[in-house]
Amino acid sequence: MAERSLAAFAGKTVLVTGGLGFMGFNLVQRLLHADVTLRVLGRSWPPILGNLESVLDGATFFHGDIRDEALVDDAVAGCDLIYHLAGKSGPAASNSSPLEDLDVNARGILTLLDACRRLSPKVKVVFPSSRLVYGANASQPTPETAPTAPLSIYGVHKWASEQYLLLYERLYGIRTTILRITNPYGPFQRPEQKSYGVVNWFIHQAMHNRALTVYGQGTQLRDYIHVDDVVDALLIAGAAKEADAGIFNVGSGRGVSFVQMAEVIVRAAGRGTIKHIPWPAEQAVVETGDFFADTSRIEKTLGWKAGVPFELGIQDVVAKYRRMESSGALGGAEMRL
Amino acid sequence: MAERSLAAFAGKTVLVTGGLGFMGFNLVQRLLHADVTLRVLGRSWPPILGNLESVLDGATFFHGDIRDEALVDDAVAGCDLIYHLAGKSGPAASNSSPLEDLDVNARGILTLLDACRRLSPKVKVVFPSSRLVYGANASQPTPETAPTAPLSIYGVHKWASEQYLLLYERLYGIRTTILRITNPYGPFQRPEQKSYGVVNWFIHQAMHNRALTVYGQGTQLRDYIHVDDVVDALLIAGAAKEADAGIFNVGSGRGVSFVQMAEVIVRAAGRGTIKHIPWPAEQAVVETGDFFADTSRIEKTLGWKAGVPFELGIQDVVAKYRRMESSGALGGAEMRL
Repeated sequence: MAERSLAAFAGKTVLVTGGLGFMGFNLVQRLLHADVTLRVLGRSWPPILGNLESVLDGATFFHGDIRDEALVDDAVAGCDLIYHLAGKSGPAASNSSPLEDLDVNARGILTLLDACRRLSPKVKVVFPSSRLVYGANASQPTPETAPTAPLSIYGVHKWASEQYLLLYERLYGIRTTILRITNPYGPFQRPEQKSYGVVNWFIHQAMHNRALTVYGQGTQLRDYIHVDDVVDALLIAGAAKEADAGIFNVGSGRGVSFVQMAEVIVRAAGRGTIKHIPWPAEQAVVETGDFFADTSRIEKTLGWKAGVPFELGIQDVVAKYRRMESSGALGGAEMRL
Repeated sequence: MAERSLAAFAGKTVLVTGGLGFMGFNLVQRLLHADVTLRVLGRSWPPILGNLESVLDGATFFHGDIRDEALVDDAVAGCDLIYHLAGKSGPAASNSSPLEDLDVNARGILTLLDACRRLSPKVKVVFPSSRLVYGANASQPTPETAPTAPLSIYGVHKWASEQYLLLYERLYGIRTTILRITNPYGPFQRPEQKSYGVVNWFIHQAMHNRALTVYGQGTQLRDYIHVDDVVDALLIAGAAKEADAGIFNVGSGRGVSFVQMAEVIVRAAGRGTIKHIPWPAEQAVVETGDFFADTSRIEKTLGWKAGVPFELGIQDVVAKYRRMESSGALGGAEMRL
């Protein structure tokens, strides 16, 4: 399915904002092998891995911030498809720095959409929203029709971003697809992006034989999804007309308890320990309770379904980092996740 | 009811942001007669009417912008109750200038809430949201439980503001009441605030014997409410514990067609004409279709109900402007609505 989508991009100009972030870099790796004119906009340079600067060979790099209107104009003009992955992640962080979250996430996407309206009104924009737009304790599995009631500024801005996109579709004909992604994990997450995904952070800790900190009993269910599956969903969403104006959950559809996730990681790494501590206040307030996604809409509409089983997915990520570490590709004493 | 609420404010410090705007100035007029320490934050000076500078006698004026963190800190410190009425109005305008709407409306309220969290965590914040958070063609009358699906950036930011408030209540205990106001009209609207309320604009036009422009047939229903009723609701919401964490529609609960509204104004003014023109594109896209509010929640919970019948309300506003004009209180050749 995803490979057919890549074929559909032939000859198109595709922009990935946040293309050096965790999800963006995984997507860029796939697009580099496609017959597209690839543009990458990102703040960070050198990219994820110091000695892998050559990975962007063949793409045009726009170095800077998503709030920089002139830079965004340059990157957007003439695009057929935009993956808007630039942004700041993390619900607890957003509650500590609400104005920064507003600026990066809300102003960022409005700046992009304004450029689309002026310069590329026929463009399609694919946007990764989040399960965090839903309220706590929604029915499980959670369908896209569940009430939105975010517990964080981050979640409010994800929901607002969805509304901006739908509004720009209605007002200016800019096509859009919104993917509400659950808990992604996989290679190419930076260590400083701890707040993004706890799974990657735990893999990082386990591989260094450190403690994996679990709040409380850790029995809350989560829906963990390998980034390869997410990238497939992004590619299909970008290519399929049936995805236009749609909001789709992207998750495994399976609930795995938090502590079980930690156990799988310790087992796969063959190192690390699990340590239970009481819930910190700033984490307790953003805790949603059990969550796993109802993914029947995207299965029926776009034919996408997660393919990587959780245990195998974790083993895959651990193996990838081992290879990178032993090949020296990580370019430093500290493994970069 | 509202008078009892004013009595409940005795000895309290009350801040009105946007206190020189249409709704704010009407509220301030009532609070000046109450036993409160009144603070007013506003951008505009002199206020509404040039020769009425003395109207703020007894209040402390904080002159500046809601995004000015130092000014907001000064205004917020020590407050018991805040009416956050500062902001930029108008759905069509917000679609033309989305980044400006983001900055004034979303950054504005986040700046205020951040000051509350740091300086006045026991404060209560009353916020005027809007019927424009609802989607088009919601069931009529529209209850608070109807889906939110704004047609404008303005509506998205009103909904986001509601979510910020509820989040700050949950995270930091800041009490809040959200009023989703329908179509308010009344005295003290500035001519440059045309986008705020079409009723006031039409009164202005009719009193100068100009044309009242109606898009299409003007059969769409609206829920017009006199600002005196809105001020009553604001006062009750500020005083009643039952209002905490609540979202309430504030409207007449009665649907009046747009063209009927124009006819009532022409009749009350004894001047003006009605002119039908095709829908301009930028207005058609934000048109919600019929709307009138289900106000049973606020009636049951807070005992508030609109009291001013539409025809009498319009006659009252026309008479008020006539008096102001003939007394010279308007301080200029042009009546200031």
